[in-house]
Amino acid sequence: MKNRYAIILGNLGNTRDRFCQGYKQNPSSEVMLKQALERMPQIGGIELVGTWDIRPDNVADMKKRLDDAGVACASIIPDTFGNPLFGKGSLTSTDAKVRQAALDYLRQMSEVALAMDCGIVNLWLGQDGYDYLLATDYDQERNWLTEGTRSVATEFPALRYALEYKPKEPRNFSYHARMADTILAAKETGCSNVGVTIDTGHSFYAGENVAEAVVLAKRAGNLLYHMHFNDNHGSWDDDMIVSSVHFTTYVELLFWLRKTDYEGWISMDQYPYREDAVDAISESIWWVKKYEQIVDEYYDEIGLLIKENDAVKTSRFLRKLFR
Amino acid sequence: MKNRYAIILGNLGNTRDRFCQGYKQNPSSEVMLKQALERMPQIGGIELVGTWDIRPDNVADMKKRLDDAGVACASIIPDTFGNPLFGKGSLTSTDAKVRQAALDYLRQMSEVALAMDCGIVNLWLGQDGYDYLLATDYDQERNWLTEGTRSVATEFPALRYALEYKPKEPRNFSYHARMADTILAAKETGCSNVGVTIDTGHSFYAGENVAEAVVLAKRAGNLLYHMHFNDNHGSWDDDMIVSSVHFTTYVELLFWLRKTDYEGWISMDQYPYREDAVDAISESIWWVKKYEQIVDEYYDEIGLLIKENDAVKTSRFLRKLFR
Amino acid sequence: MKNRYAIILGNLGNTRDRFCQGYKQNPSSEVMLKQALERMPQIGGIELVGTWDIRPDNVADMKKRLDDAGVACASIIPDTFGNPLFGKGSLTSTDAKVRQAALDYLRQMSEVALAMDCGIVNLWLGQDGYDYLLATDYDQERNWLTEGTRSVATEFPALRYALEYKPKEPRNFSYHARMADTILAAKETGCSNVGVTIDTGHSFYAGENVAEAVVLAKRAGNLLYHMHFNDNHGSWDDDMIVSSVHFTTYVELLFWLRKTDYEGWISMDQYPYREDAVDAISESIWWVKKYEQIVDEYYDEIGLLIKENDAVKTSRFLRKLFR
Amino acid sequence: MKNRYAIILGNLGNTRDRFCQGYKQNPSSEVMLKQALERMPQIGGIELVGTWDIRPDNVADMKKRLDDAGVACASIIPDTFGNPLFGKGSLTSTDAKVRQAALDYLRQMSEVALAMDCGIVNLWLGQDGYDYLLATDYDQERNWLTEGTRSVATEFPALRYALEYKPKEPRNFSYHARMADTILAAKETGCSNVGVTIDTGHSFYAGENVAEAVVLAKRAGNLLYHMHFNDNHGSWDDDMIVSSVHFTTYVELLFWLRKTDYEGWISMDQYPYREDAVDAISESIWWVKKYEQIVDEYYDEIGLLIKENDAVKTSRFLRKLFR
Repeated sequence: MKNRYAIILGNLGNTRDRFCQGYKQNPSSEVMLKQALERMPQIGGIELVGTWDIRPDNVADMKKRLDDAGVACASIIPDTFGNPLFGKGSLTSTDAKVRQAALDYLRQMSEVALAMDCGIVNLWLGQDGYDYLLATDYDQERNWLTEGTRSVATEFPALRYALEYKPKEPRNFSYHARMADTILAAKETGCSNVGVTIDTGHSFYAGENVAEAVVLAKRAGNLLYHMHFNDNHGSWDDDMIVSSVHFTTYVELLFWLRKTDYEGWISMDQYPYREDAVDAISESIWWVKKYEQIVDEYYDEIGLLIKENDAVKTSRFLRKLFR
Repeated sequence: MKNRYAIILGNLGNTRDRFCQGYKQNPSSEVMLKQALERMPQIGGIELVGTWDIRPDNVADMKKRLDDAGVACASIIPDTFGNPLFGKGSLTSTDAKVRQAALDYLRQMSEVALAMDCGIVNLWLGQDGYDYLLATDYDQERNWLTEGTRSVATEFPALRYALEYKPKEPRNFSYHARMADTILAAKETGCSNVGVTIDTGHSFYAGENVAEAVVLAKRAGNLLYHMHFNDNHGSWDDDMIVSSVHFTTYVELLFWLRKTDYEGWISMDQYPYREDAVDAISESIWWVKKYEQIVDEYYDEIGLLIKENDAVKTSRFLRKLFR
Repeated sequence: MKNRYAIILGNLGNTRDRFCQGYKQNPSSEVMLKQALERMPQIGGIELVGTWDIRPDNVADMKKRLDDAGVACASIIPDTFGNPLFGKGSLTSTDAKVRQAALDYLRQMSEVALAMDCGIVNLWLGQDGYDYLLATDYDQERNWLTEGTRSVATEFPALRYALEYKPKEPRNFSYHARMADTILAAKETGCSNVGVTIDTGHSFYAGENVAEAVVLAKRAGNLLYHMHFNDNHGSWDDDMIVSSVHFTTYVELLFWLRKTDYEGWISMDQYPYREDAVDAISESIWWVKKYEQIVDEYYDEIGLLIKENDAVKTSRFLRKLFR
Repeated sequence: MKNRYAIILGNLGNTRDRFCQGYKQNPSSEVMLKQALERMPQIGGIELVGTWDIRPDNVADMKKRLDDAGVACASIIPDTFGNPLFGKGSLTSTDAKVRQAALDYLRQMSEVALAMDCGIVNLWLGQDGYDYLLATDYDQERNWLTEGTRSVATEFPALRYALEYKPKEPRNFSYHARMADTILAAKETGCSNVGVTIDTGHSFYAGENVAEAVVLAKRAGNLLYHMHFNDNHGSWDDDMIVSSVHFTTYVELLFWLRKTDYEGWISMDQYPYREDAVDAISESIWWVKKYEQIVDEYYDEIGLLIKENDAVKTSRFLRKLFR
């Protein structure tokens, strides 16, 4: 199973917030990659953020580094969220020039993905949404969103575009907010290579149940392309170590990922602001592995539990998992 | 515009919670109807809850009463939420006999709707969902949900079935939770007479923006069939007087209802636990009327504001609405 | 440790919500007591709700039943929340006659507590709060709250009054909402026999961290008098089986209860709407026992972890607790 | 009334988030001050953030600039939140050297406040809290918090220290989280010059009612020292223009500020990420002025409404405020 675990490279670097510009040093992508390869033997894949980690000018070098290490490029994450140009929207900006720039950038990043032999472009359109009420033409902007996504997805049929949803931050409302609306957005493109990324923490504070989100994606036609793991306290994207807060939800999630034949990456996405990054992200991997192991061992038993619809029996089962 | 305003009859009666069995007296449906007709000249429609207000045995009598008053039956709301038989689900119960009973009941209520010349069956499947994690087969239950809804909708093509969504209560998770997932559920039936009801309060505490929900329904193919109005403090279905808490969101909602050519009812749904019910619900109507009037007066100006994407201009506009 | 575990008797009976008047049969208090004594050997105490379970007319009979079973009356919970008389407030009603009735009732229930050899009156003033903004004189009502609480506490110095806080429901805002404001309210009385009850679920959806709430109560002068256990999904008082959702928070809570020398009851408070009540509540007891056992086994290790302030080390420790 | 309105200078500059390092240019403090003085004639005070805007080396210059403009220094806000040294806590760091550095810095900033003839040190201890469960000794850290606050407050009796509370961000849990716990923290110091700052947005997403928070501060002994205004969507510190979302709560807040004889500043605290900062913050001032005017005009009427406890009457009153 080793090869299914991945991390986002940048999570090993500096993590900032809007008040503090740097809790840590920010090593170069190359140094972070070296750390990951040396200290995280559990991983088989690396996600690279566009512009920050990978650009046309260093794609060959990065490819070689990953190849030499026997590690795959799990996804390319175009940076449509950190570039001030896209600060009021990328594909949905009201400025046609910005929309064009976003399209061009996504094409460039799609080329990068191809060059990296990477099948997934993880599209987190964090700036595409809105902050204030009564100041946005939702219908128009959703048209642009659909058209832009369709354009890129049509031009790169060998890639799969995984739309990562999140209810808010950095915008107060995101267009891709929860599983169901992101399925609708994916389907609106009419492209068979547009699907969804679940970030567990985004799902937790979106008020949905993440296992049910997996089922929705399955029913919509195998639309779950990618997974990001972390935990939070329930009201915000705290990006913490898996299982710091929750427990049952992970058992259920891993069960449904197996039951729906999810074959994508199990990747970690954390912001270890004040922790050793490698250690903190490794913890998450160990937790997910533990949950996968539990699901493997008790797969049939859980299969019966979800049919029985009896919270007491489920509780008895869960107690068995503790020493 | 008078005829577009409606109320749910039962809101005039006793409102209970899980601790207190009755803050008030509970008049008969006939007495409540009399009160509404006498004291609420603004309304043109009445929503009737199945079993409580209307059954095969009193449908002729109710029809006559409404006809005599020149008031329409705005919707029939089948009671799939208060009957203990459906306490663990109606169309999605794991017990085949209960699912059958639910189907039979929905057929009966559809006949009642026809007899009342009422085009809308407001389907709030409040018990269809789940409470605990790892105790439910979501995929199976959603199959039942789709099949059951499809059966009734197919059998009664003259009616429109409006699925009312709500994130939780009485179940901890509802299958029809937000606009987007309810659109998916409606579309899964393949029936052109299955759409959605927005309850503003459900939308507020679901974390979505209600005006955007209107746009989603429009884009999905004119799926907004019905509207329930109320307000809350943001984290629960407090079912309060419209505009007790919020303000801008109603301006925006009424704008988008007009812009998307919504032609359904503007109905109130409140729980005036400790208020005079007629007075409290009348207040909501006056508020919505005020917001409709604002939108009528400033329709073009708002149309420009949503294109400008400038929170400052929107704020200046909103300030004008105050004395 | 057996004798520290308790239950609220009424949790074994019918659980209603505002839509469904009864998911189950509602046995008499006597029948529920028999069930508890027969099927729940883990418990050493029973909490009785005033009026529902115990009144002046049956206090001698109840006392004998508990004595015969060797089980203590863990608390008396006066019913200030289910009686319509107190629907707009008990001690804080704007109606002086209602405030007087509330006082008289609390005196009666205090007499009942004395007769039951029960040291704790659990005062959940669920109706004392408000629903709407700009409709309440908070300062005046808090004066009444303080005066009323002080009166009873002064008249019954042999009893301890544990104020149970909850952010909302049935009122949209409660006066006793979280630990810190309830400490302020307790201290305002100037009585040394007024303290606080923590209900874990109330604390979860109040946004506070329950273990920190224990520390606040300790620092305020040993004000934690009583504990109710349950779990929820984080945004509402779902009153579920302990540990259905959360995990780490219970380890931490039990640790701090021991570290602050809590000597009160460990009582369960659930609403098993759709479960076998005895089974569901028993599950909670088994979970809390498991957590107590974990804390006992690793008390020193946890003591070091909270000094180290290192999330990675804490995570490693938590992983050890799983098989 | 002009002199009571203030702004935080830095709000005019660049606003970042954890993804985007700069939506705008970041002018110098001097340039921002010039902008404020020229374009915001409504303000009589300026809040300066320590280190960023003001330090021992520029205090004389800043003083002269404010004096020349006839504008007061409304508060000094020591930067204990942006300096990585305090990233795991300032007064509550587990590292004694960091605690000492925090104390020294607060002393320096207190000297600066004195030099500016500024009576208020606004102490937002944003890094003092915790992220993970079971990794913090709350009791020990609260001791340090109390001792540190007491030390500075005792050494500078001519200053008033206003503790600004916020439920979370940048830490997942803050020690000063809501009004009631911050009152407890202020009182623990035993100092008569330690009080509280309300930031309306922090209060909104803390789940408390801000007007009731004003009353709690009054009852605790006139502990409301300072006010920051903004708005949000209810679940996060969106730092938006006042009244973008809410309405009634501001009427109520301004009423209670007057009723409790609040005499401090009415200061704005926003993050206009994507707006013209001067315009956006000016909007907030106009809104608060409007609400103050409403309260002045209807003071007696509102006084009666809060006695009547009748949501319908309150609703009728609120409707009058709209055109």
